[in-house]
Amino acid sequence: MKTKERRSRLAVGLISGTSMDGIDAALVRLSGSADRPRVRLLAFVTVPYPSEVRQRIMNVAAGVHIKAAGISQLNFLLGELFANAALRVCRAGHIAPGRVSVIGSHGQTIYHQGAPEPSVGLKGPAGPNTLQIAEPAVIAERTGAPVVADFRTADMAAGGQGAPLVPMVDYLLLRDSRKGTVALNIGGIANVTVIPAKGRPADVFGFDTGPGNIVSDALMRHFTGGREQYDAGGRVAARGKVNEPMLADMLCHPFFSQPPPKSAGREQFGGDFVQHCFLSRKKYRFEDLLRTSLELTAQTIVDALARFVSPETTINRLIVSGGGAHNRTLLKRLAELLPGLTVELSGRYGLPVDAKEAIAFAILADRTMHGLPGNLPRVTGARRAVVLGKIVHP
Amino acid sequence: MKTKERRSRLAVGLISGTSMDGIDAALVRLSGSADRPRVRLLAFVTVPYPSEVRQRIMNVAAGVHIKAAGISQLNFLLGELFANAALRVCRAGHIAPGRVSVIGSHGQTIYHQGAPEPSVGLKGPAGPNTLQIAEPAVIAERTGAPVVADFRTADMAAGGQGAPLVPMVDYLLLRDSRKGTVALNIGGIANVTVIPAKGRPADVFGFDTGPGNIVSDALMRHFTGGREQYDAGGRVAARGKVNEPMLADMLCHPFFSQPPPKSAGREQFGGDFVQHCFLSRKKYRFEDLLRTSLELTAQTIVDALARFVSPETTINRLIVSGGGAHNRTLLKRLAELLPGLTVELSGRYGLPVDAKEAIAFAILADRTMHGLPGNLPRVTGARRAVVLGKIVHP
Repeated sequence: MKTKERRSRLAVGLISGTSMDGIDAALVRLSGSADRPRVRLLAFVTVPYPSEVRQRIMNVAAGVHIKAAGISQLNFLLGELFANAALRVCRAGHIAPGRVSVIGSHGQTIYHQGAPEPSVGLKGPAGPNTLQIAEPAVIAERTGAPVVADFRTADMAAGGQGAPLVPMVDYLLLRDSRKGTVALNIGGIANVTVIPAKGRPADVFGFDTGPGNIVSDALMRHFTGGREQYDAGGRVAARGKVNEPMLADMLCHPFFSQPPPKSAGREQFGGDFVQHCFLSRKKYRFEDLLRTSLELTAQTIVDALARFVSPETTINRLIVSGGGAHNRTLLKRLAELLPGLTVELSGRYGLPVDAKEAIAFAILADRTMHGLPGNLPRVTGARRAVVLGKIVHP
Repeated sequence: MKTKERRSRLAVGLISGTSMDGIDAALVRLSGSADRPRVRLLAFVTVPYPSEVRQRIMNVAAGVHIKAAGISQLNFLLGELFANAALRVCRAGHIAPGRVSVIGSHGQTIYHQGAPEPSVGLKGPAGPNTLQIAEPAVIAERTGAPVVADFRTADMAAGGQGAPLVPMVDYLLLRDSRKGTVALNIGGIANVTVIPAKGRPADVFGFDTGPGNIVSDALMRHFTGGREQYDAGGRVAARGKVNEPMLADMLCHPFFSQPPPKSAGREQFGGDFVQHCFLSRKKYRFEDLLRTSLELTAQTIVDALARFVSPETTINRLIVSGGGAHNRTLLKRLAELLPGLTVELSGRYGLPVDAKEAIAFAILADRTMHGLPGNLPRVTGARRAVVLGKIVHP
């Protein structure tokens, strides 16, 4: 990698994840070399989707049939909403949007297929493909800043699964010459990035471990009639007991034993999974189901480290980010199951847990603008390291 | 505009139009200044879509309901087909694809909405929006060349209709200091670019005049049971007579009296229009319907010139391109209706009639790579001239 020092510059990262709650927007100041950037978070906002829009996106992502017109309109509508989130985070940081050197917009995933599958409406299989929407030309026009979007397509065109992409950022910001590090992000899906001590980019690997908060969030919404979106602090789960037979059943899901690279989504652990594994068993207590879903998350993370990481490299610390980092019950359980490791939050390293993914896409966009690759082939399965995304000039 | 001379360079343009027959690919050598480029066509190929794919795209564009998965898979599949067309035209021109400085891919339009309309699946109106597919990251990866794609979105984000875009290229290549020029492209839809003598970019205007070959092609397919896709040379129409009452009816369509800027598509003049205006009247002869549809094309072009062009500027010549330029009956009829004008084919000016649109997107992509705007605000209705498209680096 190039190591030339570069001027300090402003960047914005935008993402709405699998939970589809709203748009996370991070404004950062980047400095230092491309090889070891320094990042300072200047502002962070989350702009919830209007409930009608959220419901629409959830339906589209769940496979509802829709006209091409519907997708096209939604793409432009989300472009306006993402642009608005970018403008808001700039206002929060007291920065004129035109001063931002790049906006990295992940967009909203409405379909992601990491492996060949039978195609919809045509004979034969469809290769890996992905669809993120939120028109970047709209974001560029409203903000006056260059936009990089559609980060996953280039990796998939090069034979990768298009995910996960955050590991490059973990590598850039969290690596250590003496400590083997695992960066654990617990969003809807949980994923790990493994950075061996003194590791180079080609030594880094990572993969999705399975459900993060996706199951717990779905259960909370179900049992509160939509009033509560998540189990704050893991307080409900803390009152429950693990249902061991139910847990044992779920641990047999083939995803968990599949070797990396692998990525998971709503396809595997969304509504169908929750319905089948949890809600079809009406005789159990609410808090026990929450506790069991938390145990599923904790054990599949720990199991993945034991199966796929420890045989390869020594781990000294686990750095946790994502919404799940607020779940004290889950963190406590992880610490119990991993007695040899230091368990820390990513905020300690300049990556506040909620802002980390948005910050990551600001950094990936900055790399694209400098012609640097953003994927890690060993992580995504791509044939080579590629420059990610599409550049739109305002 | 910048006038600096630039080095000779290779570019490829790719487009599949509203007729959805297949992918036109042009390989050109560009030289000269950005203000007055010189273009030489090195190779041109048309790669038909597999019939199953064509039918699928036609259905999706016609508003069939489909899962997001179907759109995502089709985007990647068309990316492979467009990449293949780019590779083929390079092979035909004996050029290694990696030597191409840029590929401009228009993609395949599956939805285009130039004005606000009630939205699909959400309350309230949806603003202008458009959806072109054929994943450019796939084209970049397969060819090793940078790709510019999605040319229409930036203009629409800036308040334009996203069409027509070819007028910039007409301006660059066909303008004349002494002659007022109208460039007429007769594809599925017919459109004109008006370039006053000594005109500057801000003097150029243009718009869609209405149906080009779209009606005639649909009638041919209907009456031959799909064996013939178009009326070759206008030979069937030449045998028929105009049905005057039917023609008078159609000329009342509100599109024709609407002042520019305006753009038309399958939405106005596709299957529904053909069914309603032609096929619902079973007692007429096939050749008379063809002749009447030809007269509709000719008269709406001539009428548009009289209504919207002549009051503004003097026209000396009409330069015709597109598939309709092969229709001798139509050209003869245009010459009869426009006795004061020279009617020529664009091939005379280095733009072979069939290759013109593909060449145009090669030139527009070249402009984007040099940071130059590609739209003409007076033509599209945009608030300002903008750099078009999204850049994907291989």
